[in-house]
Amino acid sequence: MKQNKRTLSFASDYMEGAHPEILRRLAETNMEQTPGYGLDEYSETARAKIRRAAHAPEADIFFLIGGTQANATVIDALLRPYQGVAAAETGHISVHEAGAIEFGGHKVLTLPHKAGKISASQIESCLASYRQDANREHMVMPGMVYISQPTEYGSLYSLAELEAISAVCRAGGVHLYLDGARLAYALACPADDVTLADIARLTTAFYIGGTKCGALFGEAVVFPKKNTVPHFFSIVKQHGALLAKGRIAGLQFDALFSHDLYRKGGETAIRAADRIRSALLQKGYRLAFDAPTNQIFLVLDQKQRERLEEHVEMGFWENLPDGTTVMRLATSWATREEDVEALIERL
Amino acid sequence: MKQNKRTLSFASDYMEGAHPEILRRLAETNMEQTPGYGLDEYSETARAKIRRAAHAPEADIFFLIGGTQANATVIDALLRPYQGVAAAETGHISVHEAGAIEFGGHKVLTLPHKAGKISASQIESCLASYRQDANREHMVMPGMVYISQPTEYGSLYSLAELEAISAVCRAGGVHLYLDGARLAYALACPADDVTLADIARLTTAFYIGGTKCGALFGEAVVFPKKNTVPHFFSIVKQHGALLAKGRIAGLQFDALFSHDLYRKGGETAIRAADRIRSALLQKGYRLAFDAPTNQIFLVLDQKQRERLEEHVEMGFWENLPDGTTVMRLATSWATREEDVEALIERL
Amino acid sequence: MKQNKRTLSFASDYMEGAHPEILRRLAETNMEQTPGYGLDEYSETARAKIRRAAHAPEADIFFLIGGTQANATVIDALLRPYQGVAAAETGHISVHEAGAIEFGGHKVLTLPHKAGKISASQIESCLASYRQDANREHMVMPGMVYISQPTEYGSLYSLAELEAISAVCRAGGVHLYLDGARLAYALACPADDVTLADIARLTTAFYIGGTKCGALFGEAVVFPKKNTVPHFFSIVKQHGALLAKGRIAGLQFDALFSHDLYRKGGETAIRAADRIRSALLQKGYRLAFDAPTNQIFLVLDQKQRERLEEHVEMGFWENLPDGTTVMRLATSWATREEDVEALIERL
Amino acid sequence: MKQNKRTLSFASDYMEGAHPEILRRLAETNMEQTPGYGLDEYSETARAKIRRAAHAPEADIFFLIGGTQANATVIDALLRPYQGVAAAETGHISVHEAGAIEFGGHKVLTLPHKAGKISASQIESCLASYRQDANREHMVMPGMVYISQPTEYGSLYSLAELEAISAVCRAGGVHLYLDGARLAYALACPADDVTLADIARLTTAFYIGGTKCGALFGEAVVFPKKNTVPHFFSIVKQHGALLAKGRIAGLQFDALFSHDLYRKGGETAIRAADRIRSALLQKGYRLAFDAPTNQIFLVLDQKQRERLEEHVEMGFWENLPDGTTVMRLATSWATREEDVEALIERL
Repeated sequence: MKQNKRTLSFASDYMEGAHPEILRRLAETNMEQTPGYGLDEYSETARAKIRRAAHAPEADIFFLIGGTQANATVIDALLRPYQGVAAAETGHISVHEAGAIEFGGHKVLTLPHKAGKISASQIESCLASYRQDANREHMVMPGMVYISQPTEYGSLYSLAELEAISAVCRAGGVHLYLDGARLAYALACPADDVTLADIARLTTAFYIGGTKCGALFGEAVVFPKKNTVPHFFSIVKQHGALLAKGRIAGLQFDALFSHDLYRKGGETAIRAADRIRSALLQKGYRLAFDAPTNQIFLVLDQKQRERLEEHVEMGFWENLPDGTTVMRLATSWATREEDVEALIERL
Repeated sequence: MKQNKRTLSFASDYMEGAHPEILRRLAETNMEQTPGYGLDEYSETARAKIRRAAHAPEADIFFLIGGTQANATVIDALLRPYQGVAAAETGHISVHEAGAIEFGGHKVLTLPHKAGKISASQIESCLASYRQDANREHMVMPGMVYISQPTEYGSLYSLAELEAISAVCRAGGVHLYLDGARLAYALACPADDVTLADIARLTTAFYIGGTKCGALFGEAVVFPKKNTVPHFFSIVKQHGALLAKGRIAGLQFDALFSHDLYRKGGETAIRAADRIRSALLQKGYRLAFDAPTNQIFLVLDQKQRERLEEHVEMGFWENLPDGTTVMRLATSWATREEDVEALIERL
Repeated sequence: MKQNKRTLSFASDYMEGAHPEILRRLAETNMEQTPGYGLDEYSETARAKIRRAAHAPEADIFFLIGGTQANATVIDALLRPYQGVAAAETGHISVHEAGAIEFGGHKVLTLPHKAGKISASQIESCLASYRQDANREHMVMPGMVYISQPTEYGSLYSLAELEAISAVCRAGGVHLYLDGARLAYALACPADDVTLADIARLTTAFYIGGTKCGALFGEAVVFPKKNTVPHFFSIVKQHGALLAKGRIAGLQFDALFSHDLYRKGGETAIRAADRIRSALLQKGYRLAFDAPTNQIFLVLDQKQRERLEEHVEMGFWENLPDGTTVMRLATSWATREEDVEALIERL
Repeated sequence: MKQNKRTLSFASDYMEGAHPEILRRLAETNMEQTPGYGLDEYSETARAKIRRAAHAPEADIFFLIGGTQANATVIDALLRPYQGVAAAETGHISVHEAGAIEFGGHKVLTLPHKAGKISASQIESCLASYRQDANREHMVMPGMVYISQPTEYGSLYSLAELEAISAVCRAGGVHLYLDGARLAYALACPADDVTLADIARLTTAFYIGGTKCGALFGEAVVFPKKNTVPHFFSIVKQHGALLAKGRIAGLQFDALFSHDLYRKGGETAIRAADRIRSALLQKGYRLAFDAPTNQIFLVLDQKQRERLEEHVEMGFWENLPDGTTVMRLATSWATREEDVEALIERL
């Protein structure tokens, strides 16, 4: 859709194509012949760069295509059939994956959230409550905890929180899995004190999001410990998640993890979001929750909303009981400064 | 993998990137902002072009990412839980999808093949045998027939064969689904008398392969009849098969169905394969079966194989009881004439 | 376990075998030869009796073995893969079926409960919220509502409530399914104004519980409308739920629906429960919630609990924040008056 | 169905109820109160007796309800998602379970049979062929071998054959699972040299059939090695296979494994079958294959079939190309000598 020149879109963070460097590399290598299924040299160098960035020298890394696919495949690979995955009730797997986790046979055990987050003590209670229930063998055993960084609400787990969650999971013998669909926007955030290496140290598995962070598509699934899931390749294939020309995904991650591209894309988004947030507050707008990353949740009354929507495409989030609406503005690696200024002008 | 200059690779038909026109269009539209999930303008024009090419003005069309994924999603969408899919024992779904069809809960009911093909009368017997079995309600009901064009053995169904199969399926109340992973190499083949419009007229669903026919990735799933599967979008999402930046797939099919690119790519491959086949026969090589499309199945003794493999990368197919080996050479949209000549020189 | 004479057990309603009349009929017919899989004459007469009792002359009726199995099979048969089932968060399928519903690929969409019940307006909101969500195709579509009568908390839906729920379901195009594991104890309850015929009139499917209501095992799944689920027999088989000697289940339901045995068993349980409830209230005990059926939920402090447990086996329900505990006493078709009096003496 | 006095039925081995001793024990213990789900004393003593009979002192034993259910549950419990189960193409799981194995997500990898049997060398080839295939990670990995004793064709594995199969499975790292639906009729057969202890020694899991061998229903699933499948109880529950009044199944196996009832029932059937077989041969009938157990496969021409069917109910097996038909006569623990003689008279 060629955008009307006068409409500014902040509706989501996957509206553009890819970082131009990625297109350049695709063009440059286009006619080379490589083996398929991720066995090519570009996928291999991408893996090496991610291992280095994550301080996880023996990590197994697989490039999948999208977030729901990565979640469903990893969860199915790590759980036994009778186990479920605990997640915030607002988690992506709880709400917006059209039942992909259940399609694989697993229940999502939902926990109440605070701004999209769950806590170590909630998880501890959940595990204890299962362990102590006389009928537990009639119930779904929690076998994994799913969190996302940043969360669906744009909030961040602090290192202390992540360490506490990880400790509870290890003590309870359950896996910790981190969905990093927007990980670039966490890592680039000044408020963030969790590094890629921390995530690798503290989880059983996680994925580094490409689709929303500068790639055409692609998510890098990382198992920091070698051979965590034997035959994961077959599981990926069985889930229909194996890319024939794996190099297309590998090359993109190779590019994103060269010259700090992944971080720089994140910084562009955060700079833009911070600029918009401070303008909003200055102009008296109210934010729905404290989200320091690339998503801005704005409370608007009907009039404000109508006025803004004349010029700006936003995402609908939810209606509040008082008649106001929460709308989402998302910035990304692709956000242009001039669009940010144009938006601010119109606020 | 930068190929050693002296090695020629004919190992498969998905070793290069994409038709340069696709990369050009990706670059050209890269910074446009479009809605996700296939709701963009490029996906829409691609659909319009495919509808026209297939003489199927009301077809529902979805762009998925890979063949196994397309097969698993379509089969799951069209079958009831207690139904299975009949296929050649050599069909891709029977052998090389790591159990993706069974992961969705369906049995593959295998039929003996002739050069990768099954016949209308085999299907008729299979349906009759189910219907007449007193214990049929204890068995898996055939609910669909799966064929591929060309088949895994590079052979083609004639129009007469396809019409007979379609008639048997309709009479038996089962769906006919055609896997077109290499459809370009059927359509461009002089021996082929089946058009895209014939396929649309004779099947419940089919897919037009992009991955092996000039795209970076992508398969266009076509339901010629509108609303064949209500909520197919959700089923795609549930299978982890929904591309966030759907435009990337849509744009590729838009390019492939502009200026006859899909056909031209097919013709390049067929021309090369025909040239190689005639050179092979001239030089006294034996072909394993009559495959008129882009795959050449060559019977080699141990010595011939060793000699050829010094210069040419081929795909292993199978060992024959007499000690010879069937090897596969595959051409594609990307095959260069000079490589064909270099190969022939070395035969 | 031969019970210690001094221990009274009210721990559950499935501790004894079966109504003696059932054993008598099993013995009487034991050496007759009948076809398997529910095609025998006893299953047929049982179906006829249930059709009559439910005023559902064309109902399809299948005898399954247990409640979880009946729930999983019916839900899987009625839903499309992308649909889920809405239920009280306390529903049996939500908590105590070890993920059997998810094993079949379906999400349980939980709603907050009141004494185990959900309301028509909650369901209406749930359906409307799905319909109105712009992202609904990324979410699990509610395709069915699951309720139980009586509920897991021993409470009853009134006819007015059931009619309202049924109307909302029909208007929303979703199935209503009623789990009648303890249906005898609803039907025999003076407070109940819902008949078997009402249930048949208002639901897509329900089951009449045998296991907890006088049978060795068995649940009669009823689809009031003929041919609601084509090939349900195969689905039952696929779920491993088909009894080879179907007559064993059929004969039990034939017995239960002869001479009003099903109702009489219910009345025995309700009479006992009412007697216990009034004694409890008279002696100053507190009941946790208003449950007029065969389950009594008793709030006990630590001392009371210890004292009672010396003589009476009860079921643990939950710990309350104030340090007290809710314990469950269950009566059944098998409860003896002398045991009721012995229990009351010890209160 | 009260059988017409003049019709003799040899149609199957599950037409009667249960061994009278089972009914006696059910009646005797009927009003005892026991805990549910197999935690009762009768299930415990049954387990002890089976452990003793199988020389497997630490075996985990679970009582399930039917054969398809036992197969689906055990296979799902022992396999990883990407694994399949190898079986004869005539195996019960291959043909007559309505897709129950695929419902659990697993492919049945079929092997050609000889009189229902597969051989160690076939299995070895199957495993080797997977291991040696360059594309094996795109294929379903064999994770288990399924056999039945006796087979669906009434044939028996010899001890030497079973030991060879077991050795191949162990060497290949795959489970061996034995379906003993009719195990009594193997164990009681003079031709049999495989004991229950051999089976326990040589398999990962097996089940001792009750349904076809004297019980109302029930199959005893045995894992000779303790804790082979952690949380199997939950898996059983998730499959809808957990019997609330587990004692009903436990008590039946307690009875069958007391006073040699299981063996004696088997002997009754074999004696009857042998008597019929020798009469058939004497009268010039042709047997379709060498089946020494309780099933007799008789080749009849149209006239013979019509004449016999006037008096005897048989099971249809298959039509042969020469226009004759294979019919099955089955004897069982319940077969009466007078019926055998009456049958022979009419041959």
